[in-house]
Amino acid sequence: MADNTLVIIGGDAAGMTAASKVRREQPDRKIIVFEKSQYTSYSACGIPYFISETVKSAEELVVRSPEEFRKKYKIDVRTMHLVLEVDTDNKKIKVLDKEKDEEIWQEYDQLLIATGGHSFCPDIEGQDAENAFGISTLKSGIKLEKYIEDKKPKSAVIIGGGYIGLEMAEALLIRGLKVTLINRSEQVMNTLDPDMGAMVSDAVRNLGVTLYLNEELKAFDLKDNMIKGVVTNKRTIKADIVIFGMGSAPNTAFLKGSKIKLGVKDAIAVNTKMETNIKDVWAAGDCAETFHLVSKKQVYIALGTLANKSGLVAGSNIAGEKSVFPGGVGTAVCKVCSYEVARTGLLEKDLKAMKIDYVTATTKSKTRAHYYPGAKDITVKLLAEKKSGRLLGAQIIGEEGAAKRIDVLATALTHNLTVQNIIDLDLSYAPPFSPVWDPVQTAARKLINDI
Amino acid sequence: MADNTLVIIGGDAAGMTAASKVRREQPDRKIIVFEKSQYTSYSACGIPYFISETVKSAEELVVRSPEEFRKKYKIDVRTMHLVLEVDTDNKKIKVLDKEKDEEIWQEYDQLLIATGGHSFCPDIEGQDAENAFGISTLKSGIKLEKYIEDKKPKSAVIIGGGYIGLEMAEALLIRGLKVTLINRSEQVMNTLDPDMGAMVSDAVRNLGVTLYLNEELKAFDLKDNMIKGVVTNKRTIKADIVIFGMGSAPNTAFLKGSKIKLGVKDAIAVNTKMETNIKDVWAAGDCAETFHLVSKKQVYIALGTLANKSGLVAGSNIAGEKSVFPGGVGTAVCKVCSYEVARTGLLEKDLKAMKIDYVTATTKSKTRAHYYPGAKDITVKLLAEKKSGRLLGAQIIGEEGAAKRIDVLATALTHNLTVQNIIDLDLSYAPPFSPVWDPVQTAARKLINDI
Repeated sequence: MADNTLVIIGGDAAGMTAASKVRREQPDRKIIVFEKSQYTSYSACGIPYFISETVKSAEELVVRSPEEFRKKYKIDVRTMHLVLEVDTDNKKIKVLDKEKDEEIWQEYDQLLIATGGHSFCPDIEGQDAENAFGISTLKSGIKLEKYIEDKKPKSAVIIGGGYIGLEMAEALLIRGLKVTLINRSEQVMNTLDPDMGAMVSDAVRNLGVTLYLNEELKAFDLKDNMIKGVVTNKRTIKADIVIFGMGSAPNTAFLKGSKIKLGVKDAIAVNTKMETNIKDVWAAGDCAETFHLVSKKQVYIALGTLANKSGLVAGSNIAGEKSVFPGGVGTAVCKVCSYEVARTGLLEKDLKAMKIDYVTATTKSKTRAHYYPGAKDITVKLLAEKKSGRLLGAQIIGEEGAAKRIDVLATALTHNLTVQNIIDLDLSYAPPFSPVWDPVQTAARKLINDI
Repeated sequence: MADNTLVIIGGDAAGMTAASKVRREQPDRKIIVFEKSQYTSYSACGIPYFISETVKSAEELVVRSPEEFRKKYKIDVRTMHLVLEVDTDNKKIKVLDKEKDEEIWQEYDQLLIATGGHSFCPDIEGQDAENAFGISTLKSGIKLEKYIEDKKPKSAVIIGGGYIGLEMAEALLIRGLKVTLINRSEQVMNTLDPDMGAMVSDAVRNLGVTLYLNEELKAFDLKDNMIKGVVTNKRTIKADIVIFGMGSAPNTAFLKGSKIKLGVKDAIAVNTKMETNIKDVWAAGDCAETFHLVSKKQVYIALGTLANKSGLVAGSNIAGEKSVFPGGVGTAVCKVCSYEVARTGLLEKDLKAMKIDYVTATTKSKTRAHYYPGAKDITVKLLAEKKSGRLLGAQIIGEEGAAKRIDVLATALTHNLTVQNIIDLDLSYAPPFSPVWDPVQTAARKLINDI
């Protein structure tokens, strides 16, 4: 097409990062963004803090509004537009204008799919009940907050103990609800090894959450499109509201009839340039796969950091530059009241599955010099290849000052550093910030004995 | 000698780390430690916090007492023993027993020199005055604290605006003194570039410190061995107490007649095994040189982290293992009231001296998501080689949550990562901990435009 139109599906992190990048490099390029909600560029990760009223208004979570993109960036953002179908043979997409209830076809020269993810929920009757909430979009967060405000629910059942489940547990405790969390496996936070996950389970119970492990959602006890109780394999739990915290799934159902290849967990298959298998079609963010730099496999990880990075790379390549998104190592952090949890790299179960001979060490130390006020407990677990000593994974649980220490280990993992390399690092020390051996080095000093 | 005696001079970080390591590997080895004070293994870095009464007693700063080393570790620790002379030809040292006022000769098979450093002071009359204090040893810290308690001084002049000077400014402000700091160069903290140093100067002034830059100590106004005023090239400043914060110098004067080679700033010249030029003589900690991994030069850096690491390596090699201390990158952090300052690697002046073509970028962002309560300002400056993009230095100034971010950059520096590598790092993010792009990556994203 003569006007070289870039069409982007999805107006959040990956989509708008790409749109902004293309606009910077190609000031006159025609860019159309279709966004199904009325919001663009908001922090989905901030929603639990809006629910807890730590953040006072939903608007604070919005980085840039559709209006701002239209005026300042000359990007044609069309909110309340849901894309229904992609026809890559004819380079066009079918879009529903939700306000006018009209379907239109839009042609593209290049297409970026950045539709994000949604809160996963098994196909059980009642998942659309009035008091059931996923919180993957700002709209769903606002809906939940309004429900709490209007209906004053007294009890909540959270299904799933991942990051979102735990952050929502904190939020609802702060709002004064009685919180029950059910978790299918034997530990919350299955991105940790069981021994570390057990510490988080203890911490969550300490906060006053009723925690049922090894329990699976079987059905909802429904009345007039309202959930009255959550039925598990062991009991029925009364619930004024139900929260889905079972993790994210990619928004790719609309691609099922298209020629665009889906990969792991139905995320869009991409290469390191964020290209799909179809020429001129790109994908980025929570709807796409990520290459895992340690396991060397494509994985599905829905995280704002990866969405921003992959969106930037997609935008750069669409604008004609040559950029590569090498991938991630699965770094993530989570705060649950005073507790901080962090992880990066592979777990013991991953290493067993890959038949890698590994060693681990776990050490407990302090976030500051032992004598400095406010020194908190921090537990660091490291996993390394036995033969080479190469770091393969790390997990941290502690209180204030614990979580961000994972970044050194994420850096180490990414660049194939060994446990000895970690001991040798010239990390910063002063009594208000650290013991003289940083806790990550204390763990490395223990682990080196097994290598 | 038959009993294979290890003699260690100095009973603090490097010396006792080495002693403990040798004891672990060689349970029956004869180990004698001569320590000039009555204390072993204390945190000299904690002294400012003892002065400020943040730490209530000096004993809290002691990790292990001489008694504990003697009983639990079977290490013959002799406190109040000052080593006067080393005779490497005859493998013996001359020691003054300060309590008995007796000189003895002690033979050694292997010798580790770990005498540490002292607060540097130019040779000016009055440096030994009753109200003049260096605080490089626990003894000197206790003396100062007692003086403040007994004499209730109202004003202090700190000479030198390095880490110790600034930490002491905080401590004395907390104790209610009027604090004046004089600094020879145009900025405090000369381990930062001038633009970043100026921000620290502003911060220090904000705290209520009277700061005189470009002012040099010329003399003390003395009366009865008490300093009444500090005379600079511009004025005389009334002082009830004077603190030396001009940095550290190695305790190596007693080696001047020996065959042991001194290097940079009279620190003991060592190789990566912590061996001196003389067989069976080792050195570690603040009395020895450190290899700088970025400049590839021997430097003098007095820091607890390097003392512990080099002491461990010395001990390991003395015990017959094969260990290497690769060196440091000059990482350091400092807290001054609510401000945090961190640095690693080289400065602009270093790069100019080395004729390296470099680029820099400085960005201001937040320590947490912009909407999350407690998000503080953080300014990050990066320096990189223009041609390759390799990171060469970094400096951070901010408030809570700022300083420890230097560790990722120290890791990056040590392993030759480029600015693009830093952008690609999978660093952790959740709203309570970071913006979605960590501040160090925000700086890298700006800098990449110049590479």
